[in-house]
Amino acid sequence: MARITRRTLLAAAPVLASAAPAPTGVTQFVRYLRGSEPTHGIVEGDLIRRITGDLFGSFKTTKETVKFSTQKLLYPVQPSKVLAVGLNYKSHIGTRTPPVNPEIFYKPITCLQHPGADIVIPKDSKNTHYEGELVIVIGKHIRNASAADAKDAIFGVTCGNDVSERDWQNGAQKDLQWWRAKGADTFGPLGPGIVRGLDYANLDLSTKLNGKVVQHSNTSDLLFDCPTIVSFISRYVTLLPGDLIYTGTPGSTQRMSPGDTVEVEISGIGTLFNRVV
Amino acid sequence: MARITRRTLLAAAPVLASAAPAPTGVTQFVRYLRGSEPTHGIVEGDLIRRITGDLFGSFKTTKETVKFSTQKLLYPVQPSKVLAVGLNYKSHIGTRTPPVNPEIFYKPITCLQHPGADIVIPKDSKNTHYEGELVIVIGKHIRNASAADAKDAIFGVTCGNDVSERDWQNGAQKDLQWWRAKGADTFGPLGPGIVRGLDYANLDLSTKLNGKVVQHSNTSDLLFDCPTIVSFISRYVTLLPGDLIYTGTPGSTQRMSPGDTVEVEISGIGTLFNRVV
Repeated sequence: MARITRRTLLAAAPVLASAAPAPTGVTQFVRYLRGSEPTHGIVEGDLIRRITGDLFGSFKTTKETVKFSTQKLLYPVQPSKVLAVGLNYKSHIGTRTPPVNPEIFYKPITCLQHPGADIVIPKDSKNTHYEGELVIVIGKHIRNASAADAKDAIFGVTCGNDVSERDWQNGAQKDLQWWRAKGADTFGPLGPGIVRGLDYANLDLSTKLNGKVVQHSNTSDLLFDCPTIVSFISRYVTLLPGDLIYTGTPGSTQRMSPGDTVEVEISGIGTLFNRVV
Repeated sequence: MARITRRTLLAAAPVLASAAPAPTGVTQFVRYLRGSEPTHGIVEGDLIRRITGDLFGSFKTTKETVKFSTQKLLYPVQPSKVLAVGLNYKSHIGTRTPPVNPEIFYKPITCLQHPGADIVIPKDSKNTHYEGELVIVIGKHIRNASAADAKDAIFGVTCGNDVSERDWQNGAQKDLQWWRAKGADTFGPLGPGIVRGLDYANLDLSTKLNGKVVQHSNTSDLLFDCPTIVSFISRYVTLLPGDLIYTGTPGSTQRMSPGDTVEVEISGIGTLFNRVV
């Protein structure tokens, strides 16, 4: 499977690090600019093959390919909404009481940021942290779904960084709700591609700050697994194709400073790289 | 100006109550189905004149009109996101400390509900309240806007009901964030039309439960006025044309039960009527 490493992403145009064919049944979808219009494609070795139609419905592969290394990737889907789960790894909860149900919140779609693009720390922020996370991409319109139906409604997964301003979230400047703590512009890096066909319950996840591993876990440690999260949300809030769910972060987090680089790497997906400004 | 009253909305198809022409400089935009496709129109007496193009950019009035009384109105705009303000009337804050900044949260766009349509109380909810509110409709792409630019970016206003499940918001079943307390399906009634050209800082607002006035105030009592709210949000989160901001509710609220009717009436806009099931 095509992998995107930090080293390649540090260059202006990302280069495909590995041209090994994807395992059978595993597909990686990316989004990129075709002229000035975004389009979707499927990664095939060091090429991206353009697809047309509805990513979540009926789409066709075309004969049009572009070199992966020449494309600046966009966050891989434009959703109608973004949800996220708090306190979903034992290692992140620490001494706090584990929640009875998934603890959900919203991020606005305006906070999404492209792979390789900048995380902008707001002028009056002093405590903005990374949070490396697995992100679910919904593929169907679902409401009040069973765990089995919820599992079936998961189109694929990608990497996300649930950037969080701790002073606004829990500190001295704590807001009533997490609207800017989790929702300021550029606080939702996402990508590089959506991968389907993996075992989402057993993926290694690590976050690097300036090249040093600062979070490391596996999605098998999630308190609520992907189908449980999707099923629970859908009891109250209808989910639509393309909707995103950041599934929570493991371990502890640190403050980021301008000039830092952050990578979220998940096995079988690749690396989401962003620079902090 | 065309007004929509409870009595007329109790009928299956709403009837225009008043065919008086709108005051000079005041326009009411509605959304309705043209065949199976939503379209926008401008209310002219007891007619709706269809418009084409971009409501927030360049649009044209057409020669096509329909009778207002034959149309089922849709919530008047499909936004990219919905924000809301908590604790924004002194009469609602009570003994709590007034906030230093507007206290913002998100409602998902899936919670929006049409005028005249049902508010569905979730199966496991025991404490779902109405909240009558003025709702701002953004008309421009803005980021880090001054109060003057923010004022200029307000396209118009409409009525909203920020339906809230108090047990999930603050009670025994309190969630970490208000995602389902404020965001369950149908928890965002909106409409009937978007009105521009009014003095948004001096509008009477009242809410009726089963015909009896249960909230009554004026937007001059808002702690943070419309331009201040918009400007503050835009320091952190980019706002786009069509985005909505519920501005907060006055006074106290009560639990709704199946069979109840709720009306939010704002002077110069009309009445948003919904039934509870």
